[in-house]
Amino acid sequence: MKNIVTVGGGTGSYTVLMGLKNIPNTSLSALVSMADNGGSTGVLMDELGVLPGGDVRQCLVALSEHSDVVRKLMSYRFPNGGLAGHNFGNIFLAALEKVTGNFSKGVEVASEILKIKGKVIPITNDSAELCVELSNGKVIGEDNIQNASLQKDGLKKISYKTKVSLNEHAKKALLNANFIILGPGNYYCSVVPNLIVDGFKEAIKKSKAKIIFPVNLTNKLEHTKGWKVSTYVNDIEKYLGKKVDFILVNTEKPTKEQIERYKLEEGEEVLVADDLNDNRVIRASILSHTVYEKAKEDLHPSTKGFIRHDSEKLAQCINKIIS
Amino acid sequence: MKNIVTVGGGTGSYTVLMGLKNIPNTSLSALVSMADNGGSTGVLMDELGVLPGGDVRQCLVALSEHSDVVRKLMSYRFPNGGLAGHNFGNIFLAALEKVTGNFSKGVEVASEILKIKGKVIPITNDSAELCVELSNGKVIGEDNIQNASLQKDGLKKISYKTKVSLNEHAKKALLNANFIILGPGNYYCSVVPNLIVDGFKEAIKKSKAKIIFPVNLTNKLEHTKGWKVSTYVNDIEKYLGKKVDFILVNTEKPTKEQIERYKLEEGEEVLVADDLNDNRVIRASILSHTVYEKAKEDLHPSTKGFIRHDSEKLAQCINKIIS
Repeated sequence: MKNIVTVGGGTGSYTVLMGLKNIPNTSLSALVSMADNGGSTGVLMDELGVLPGGDVRQCLVALSEHSDVVRKLMSYRFPNGGLAGHNFGNIFLAALEKVTGNFSKGVEVASEILKIKGKVIPITNDSAELCVELSNGKVIGEDNIQNASLQKDGLKKISYKTKVSLNEHAKKALLNANFIILGPGNYYCSVVPNLIVDGFKEAIKKSKAKIIFPVNLTNKLEHTKGWKVSTYVNDIEKYLGKKVDFILVNTEKPTKEQIERYKLEEGEEVLVADDLNDNRVIRASILSHTVYEKAKEDLHPSTKGFIRHDSEKLAQCINKIIS
Repeated sequence: MKNIVTVGGGTGSYTVLMGLKNIPNTSLSALVSMADNGGSTGVLMDELGVLPGGDVRQCLVALSEHSDVVRKLMSYRFPNGGLAGHNFGNIFLAALEKVTGNFSKGVEVASEILKIKGKVIPITNDSAELCVELSNGKVIGEDNIQNASLQKDGLKKISYKTKVSLNEHAKKALLNANFIILGPGNYYCSVVPNLIVDGFKEAIKKSKAKIIFPVNLTNKLEHTKGWKVSTYVNDIEKYLGKKVDFILVNTEKPTKEQIERYKLEEGEEVLVADDLNDNRVIRASILSHTVYEKAKEDLHPSTKGFIRHDSEKLAQCINKIIS
């Protein structure tokens, strides 16, 4: 039995977990960022004082062994009325937090109800508000990071407003892991927020796990524009204080339609250039050809890429490493 | 294995099911009125066009073999924000109706998620809007029945605005039943709405089941004021077209505190007088001494009695009949 830990956020973690859960003889733990405060999640946080459930929900959905209809239910977004824009799964996690008294306990109960294969673990139990210092002296919060010009204004430091400590269960998972997978996901909004949690770097240092890094497929404008595979690797290793062991690089070009749609959303074509000559690099066709549509009711700002990894292909690539 | 069918609505069915589920060698089917449109249920119906889930939810909670926390979750009412006053269980059923495409299918999935012992069956799949004709010519809808002066103005006829047919699963349950329990519950708002569904009378006529009628503990002002045990029995038999087989009458007086609280709510003491000299009557102490509080967030009009049956005592009394 291999202990596999994923570290990430919403859609990216969903993608990798959907594939990994079919690999036999593995025990999965999904460590999830708690820095999301957009859309439905943000409204519930403000109104009910609950922690953000959106990313956790997506990981629960990925690992649920319940029927498809239950997984659909968890992603259902109310189209109108007072619940308009709210995602059922977010409401579910908010109510569970209220009923159990804390978010982590709520996630445990949710995992039981949804018959989760593996574990979904919030990276922290603390309220986690991101804070970005820019070179021009400005400081911005998480709700603005998504659309901030981190490159033009210069990213000086990404941290939390208050002390945010690693959840003990997350620490245990990292220490017991055989493999740790970083991402995939929106780099500054889903991946890095985990790495800067107090205690994460120490746990990674102590852990004997091999680290797998599926490099992003596309760059995000104003966040990672112009980044190459080497840039991502160098940057993430600064947060880790340690080298990654495997670097997964996609070799397949997106279709014309995918690129067109991506351009529409992001303004220009920004595929990550494969420049790293390193024996840690594993090149494979791990791109999905599904053309993703944004749900009409989706209140979430545009955080969901249209060019994504393919769950099965990515999992098979990882499987070759771990077996 | 005895097939037991309960016929009712929310709180009353909850009470009887909570006790019955502990009786071994029984198969339970809870037939539930779909005529509720108050409070959180009504808002969801209006806004989302879903069927009323409130009564079904209470039966699901009663029969869930999940942990207590899951049952608490289903009854959790959001205290503030845009979800204020909404009951989580109602939101859950509304989302499931949307995801599965129909209410009955949604209830089936909910039953699976909540690990129901037995079955919860909506009495009908049709939209069921009650309509009461008064002797003064006025016609009122369900939302006004609760507080209507049915006795002062004279109840001429209680029916549905449109054709409301018996759900096929409900019909099957009635035909296969060994025992059918009518109520307990608010007479005109929870019990009678089941009996007037198209096909119910015919199914009861064909069924070989023995009918058990736990008579109400209290009369409702302006609905059944002055009614005695005999009045209830005669009245319900008109809807059934058939005699009931067992009449359960409580022999224990409520405490002073219960009576005071009831007076506060209903205006006067209105315990049902035990006047029926009939060998079908079974007298027992089946009263609960719990003093019920109305939840602060409860948007529902005052439909919940403060003098109720005791789940265990009522179930034991029924158990003596069925075994």
